[in-house]
Amino acid sequence: MFRVNKFQKLISVGIQRSLATHAKILPTQVRIVEVGPRDGLQNEPKLLPAQVKISLIDQLSETGLKTIEVTSFVSPKWVPQMGDNAEVLQGIRKVPGISYPVLTPNLKGFESALKSGAEEVAVFGAASDAFSLKNVNCTAAESIERFRPVLEAAKKNNVKVRGYVSTIVGCPYQGAIKPKDVVKVVEALYDMGCYEISLGDTIGVGTPGTMRKMLDEVVRAVPADKLAVHCHDTYGQALSNILTSLEYGISVVDASVSGLGGCPYARGASGNAATEDVVYMLHGMGIETGIDLDKLITVGRYICEQLGRQSESKVNRAWKGPQAKKC
Amino acid sequence: MFRVNKFQKLISVGIQRSLATHAKILPTQVRIVEVGPRDGLQNEPKLLPAQVKISLIDQLSETGLKTIEVTSFVSPKWVPQMGDNAEVLQGIRKVPGISYPVLTPNLKGFESALKSGAEEVAVFGAASDAFSLKNVNCTAAESIERFRPVLEAAKKNNVKVRGYVSTIVGCPYQGAIKPKDVVKVVEALYDMGCYEISLGDTIGVGTPGTMRKMLDEVVRAVPADKLAVHCHDTYGQALSNILTSLEYGISVVDASVSGLGGCPYARGASGNAATEDVVYMLHGMGIETGIDLDKLITVGRYICEQLGRQSESKVNRAWKGPQAKKC
Repeated sequence: MFRVNKFQKLISVGIQRSLATHAKILPTQVRIVEVGPRDGLQNEPKLLPAQVKISLIDQLSETGLKTIEVTSFVSPKWVPQMGDNAEVLQGIRKVPGISYPVLTPNLKGFESALKSGAEEVAVFGAASDAFSLKNVNCTAAESIERFRPVLEAAKKNNVKVRGYVSTIVGCPYQGAIKPKDVVKVVEALYDMGCYEISLGDTIGVGTPGTMRKMLDEVVRAVPADKLAVHCHDTYGQALSNILTSLEYGISVVDASVSGLGGCPYARGASGNAATEDVVYMLHGMGIETGIDLDKLITVGRYICEQLGRQSESKVNRAWKGPQAKKC
Repeated sequence: MFRVNKFQKLISVGIQRSLATHAKILPTQVRIVEVGPRDGLQNEPKLLPAQVKISLIDQLSETGLKTIEVTSFVSPKWVPQMGDNAEVLQGIRKVPGISYPVLTPNLKGFESALKSGAEEVAVFGAASDAFSLKNVNCTAAESIERFRPVLEAAKKNNVKVRGYVSTIVGCPYQGAIKPKDVVKVVEALYDMGCYEISLGDTIGVGTPGTMRKMLDEVVRAVPADKLAVHCHDTYGQALSNILTSLEYGISVVDASVSGLGGCPYARGASGNAATEDVVYMLHGMGIETGIDLDKLITVGRYICEQLGRQSESKVNRAWKGPQAKKC
């Protein structure tokens, strides 16, 4: 019987050491930031009553999640789905120990959010100039600068601010994004006072290869424990990209229950990484999330029923109960 | 501006070295074994005319694939979809340099395959006793022993034999599978003369965690360059599991164009890892496959049209042309 030894493994034909230069480390715990009620629902074509959103968030609060993004304080002219933001934020049952951030693109939004009781907010920038110019008519750097009044007001009011950076590997208008352009925006948000920056592959084009090139640069500029990843599954790469990010010591992952949503600028129909699939992977790797997958699956099925659509979570579709955990 | 150094990275809270003990190596090239025409179509409910299958395989031969599994020489009583095996194997245009294996569960099947011009065959065992007992009424070890006459006949006729091992991490009847049970079956097939053994997560329940536990054992018994992986996407984990396998030096990956097929014993609806999604990931990592993704996408769309179903490949659904490669 032939048994391979370490030396033989090293000289095997056609292989080479990983190009990645980072230390291969894995977190023991991951915090999931559930973005379904905001990033998910705002990209769903069907408008839901505030009461359904409140019920969704209240159910999510029972799953073990510690961060649930609730809504967005933007003009209802731009995002009609979030027109009930104050009603939703005020209507949910706030469980101690859970954070309920809301998106606030400007000072006006921040003030409305504050009035409705927000204790954490998020701002949203892009790494791509072309994306930024198309969406907010200024460069990426200029768009970040516009958040300064929000960060200052937040500091005064003891409100935490999370930063999002979109188009971290690819842009629908500009194509590939240079890692140094991501670094610039991430650093700017970090220096401005964001407690955490979420790196978003908005159009889901990233692969473990392009994610690595980007992360090799970004984790040199900002500590991995201040970073999160936000991967869309447009090209089916979300879980692989999350797995790659874990190896950089990143331990915060954005995900959307049942894969709700998507990016209106993306070519495919797929939305965010489905929380159920992310949690299934992490638990299978022995990484704790504190989340009860059975409960999460029930919530995913509830919201899909309300939307009249199939769950985009493969785990949710395949799940027949906890006996599957054995495998 | 805060810049993280290596020391700070190592002491970051909540992280630990990867549990994986293997060398982190990545192949520079991966050979894809396209299993769509066999494993894919045999699990599709719609029966296709032989001419469509022949056209599918001939189109696949133009994409750069080097191995295309063509059909199965089993009793049409069990797998009616493969009743046209001889017609398909004899009808395809065999391109020099491409291998066209067929599945042969027993000596009778092998002899029919040989008569139809097969130059490579495959045998199919399971790591799970419960799965084996349910399907072929004998233990896993006994089922492997039954292949000995096939291997001997193949050797005499200068025919290469590939071995499949199913249920490598989980079994629908037995639950979790012990890595040592996988080792036993893989070693038996290797010692019997299989030139390559494909490790199949038949019901798609594996995660990078369970894959690692299994691979840690298996690559100690059989060299990584004699192994392939065959991941189903039932729980959305196929690409992550393939990525994990690459880190063990495995450089042969089974995949099915447009994710055709699935396992009739699996709970969800998802089939094999979609070839388009695997190739997209590999190319994004700088790993060569020799495959023209544009051509492959065209073939995936052809066969889905013939089956009257949507492509299960997210890359295929999102693909609008080679400009997406830029990202």
